[in-house]
Amino acid sequence: MNKEKKSSAYINDLCERAANAKKDICILDTKSKNRILLKYADVLRKNSTSILAENEKDLKAAIDAGVSKAFYDRLLLDEKRIDSMAQSVEEIAAFEDPVGRIENMRTRPSGIRVGQMRVPLGVVAVIYESRPNVTVDIASLCIKSGNVAVLRGGEESIYTNMILASMIRDILAGMNYNPDIVNLVENLDRDLVPVLLKRDDAIDIVIPRGGEGLIKMVTQEATIPVIKHEKGLCHLYVDESAVKDMAEQIAVNGKVQRPGVCNAVETMLIHKNYPWKKELLAVLMKHKVEIRGCEKTIEIMPGIVAATAADWKTEYLDLTISVRIVDSFEDALEHITTYSSGHSEAIVTSDYFLGQRFLKEIDSAAVFVNASTRFHDGGEFGLGAEVGISTQKLHARGAMGIEGLTTLKYIVYGNGEIR
Amino acid sequence: MNKEKKSSAYINDLCERAANAKKDICILDTKSKNRILLKYADVLRKNSTSILAENEKDLKAAIDAGVSKAFYDRLLLDEKRIDSMAQSVEEIAAFEDPVGRIENMRTRPSGIRVGQMRVPLGVVAVIYESRPNVTVDIASLCIKSGNVAVLRGGEESIYTNMILASMIRDILAGMNYNPDIVNLVENLDRDLVPVLLKRDDAIDIVIPRGGEGLIKMVTQEATIPVIKHEKGLCHLYVDESAVKDMAEQIAVNGKVQRPGVCNAVETMLIHKNYPWKKELLAVLMKHKVEIRGCEKTIEIMPGIVAATAADWKTEYLDLTISVRIVDSFEDALEHITTYSSGHSEAIVTSDYFLGQRFLKEIDSAAVFVNASTRFHDGGEFGLGAEVGISTQKLHARGAMGIEGLTTLKYIVYGNGEIR
Repeated sequence: MNKEKKSSAYINDLCERAANAKKDICILDTKSKNRILLKYADVLRKNSTSILAENEKDLKAAIDAGVSKAFYDRLLLDEKRIDSMAQSVEEIAAFEDPVGRIENMRTRPSGIRVGQMRVPLGVVAVIYESRPNVTVDIASLCIKSGNVAVLRGGEESIYTNMILASMIRDILAGMNYNPDIVNLVENLDRDLVPVLLKRDDAIDIVIPRGGEGLIKMVTQEATIPVIKHEKGLCHLYVDESAVKDMAEQIAVNGKVQRPGVCNAVETMLIHKNYPWKKELLAVLMKHKVEIRGCEKTIEIMPGIVAATAADWKTEYLDLTISVRIVDSFEDALEHITTYSSGHSEAIVTSDYFLGQRFLKEIDSAAVFVNASTRFHDGGEFGLGAEVGISTQKLHARGAMGIEGLTTLKYIVYGNGEIR
Repeated sequence: MNKEKKSSAYINDLCERAANAKKDICILDTKSKNRILLKYADVLRKNSTSILAENEKDLKAAIDAGVSKAFYDRLLLDEKRIDSMAQSVEEIAAFEDPVGRIENMRTRPSGIRVGQMRVPLGVVAVIYESRPNVTVDIASLCIKSGNVAVLRGGEESIYTNMILASMIRDILAGMNYNPDIVNLVENLDRDLVPVLLKRDDAIDIVIPRGGEGLIKMVTQEATIPVIKHEKGLCHLYVDESAVKDMAEQIAVNGKVQRPGVCNAVETMLIHKNYPWKKELLAVLMKHKVEIRGCEKTIEIMPGIVAATAADWKTEYLDLTISVRIVDSFEDALEHITTYSSGHSEAIVTSDYFLGQRFLKEIDSAAVFVNASTRFHDGGEFGLGAEVGISTQKLHARGAMGIEGLTTLKYIVYGNGEIR
């Protein structure tokens, strides 16, 4: 990498080109945007060999660095995964275009007609780690929603990201559009990230997707508005009135089906009067889940590990779960309010009123009654591909789809009205 | 003021009490919230003498500090203004409660039913200057929307703010609610503001209302999500096809009716082929508006002041306007894109297609065709009382009403569904 690029001039130049490309993407109609996306899907499939060759470089570096099997697997591409990336781009093309939609039109006593038009945010920056499909997804979502993308992936997938980004840039240029509609930060000097985060004059929103350290750094450094995609410390509360099979299935699904994701269950709270506490713990153990329990849990299932104070704050992302026996619904609420990361929480109950109270009183991005937290996902919620799952309350909360990349502006039709 | 309060412990304690009060306000039903508000309106009216006595202290300090007449006037309360504050509280009570409303309910192929419930943001901090009615408005809007308020007003209105805040706190306590639902920062040490802005664990959103310096400081220091309420550098574009009377009325209304507000016009762009350029300038001058014109404007109206580069960037908030003659609609768009603060812009035109293009291509919070920018206001748009006018794109853009103080959480009803 060229030395000049190392300076902040590299980032500033990229930001200015991105801001300048806004006018070129925001005016494209749905057909043109879809044509670009379908071409991208086609190019991804036809050039899988070149993509795999670049991916190989990242994989080699990963092996040299001695990464974990899980990490290596997240990085790895194959024909099937490339096909699924292309399919995801096609789905985004097929999805309804939110841009230009007019909502809430009304005539006011003054005579003016006021409504709100959905428009792109402008320039969207995303800072993310390892998985190369994020590059393709975000670039496609930005194009569909009329936004310019600034992508800053992790160094572990730099070669893969470079070829994936250069493909869409080449397509844009080849179709006589501005290639700067999609920008990849290729200089991964960490000192340059704060430079990017201060360019609120050029970038409209920054989305950090990753671990606590990344989120904290972005929140502290950014003058750009941030939409956090933080961890999921999700809770399942099994009420005394829970149906036995349902409780067991939802617990196993929440913990076992894919433990490494943010909507997996990390802590289970069980009402002391639920009759099948031991059976519930046993079914998790049968699925090789390590249980870390409170004193009362240990009384029920002697020999399991005792939970420490730290366990209630831990997102295991693994086949481990913390379990607490609670005296009441209110105690469960209080535990969740204290420890939840505000991502997803579920209750299993037969009690109508407790279900309603749980929905109302739990302050998380998604709240489930008698369904698995694993459903918290853009696809499952019907949003199409997702930008991610926002854990903050402003603008987009929870699963964030294409619409989350747009904003509303007021439009007013008048006939010469004045105040 | 007690010395101990000077330390950041004062702010930290206030933040913790505010966060703790969330659970007490968010569960209140509409009737209870309205009862609190109507009582507040009543107390304001019945205790006008005490309010005026406290206001007098602020006014005295203002005179000693030698403030401008405009500043003094903004600070000044009288019986009529107190009545209008009370009336505003009654209007907020009468407005529809957005909390608990369920939107977009749908059944997904998996069987789950997914919707979004409108819920309070949590703790809302507002940092503002001089006008004491903001204290009453924001406290009332927060109560109605189920939020805890943290108010940090300017030192120039501290005595007035203290009595207005203590009234609502006394009402809350008297009705057996937690008084910490409304909190006023009484220690105005400037070093404490950054302490407040870093408490993202306790405060959910911060709204700075004020000058550029304040906004910049908040944006840089805050780790809490910010909704900026910045300046309005608003443009009026008079197209060659504009109707003469309409152009003149909208220009005069935009500049003259209330020049000190953020939705007033600061720059007027006139198409070179508009036939009544001189008449348009003359009608503004008749209303004592000082015109700072480009070279071509001076050719039309010799003797006016020449505009410098700085004029295109200036929010006069006074009877001054900058005027530029442009060669085309595109030149007007480009000028606006370069200099606008993204607040409000208007076009006067008879051309259908130009009106549509203006609505689409101008990237501001509110865009007007043949109507005055002065309409950009929560009341005029039908939102009820307004929190302010947001000049950023995230969450709430433009006039921000009660709904802007809420967020959506996903709610899911299931029958034991798993993935």
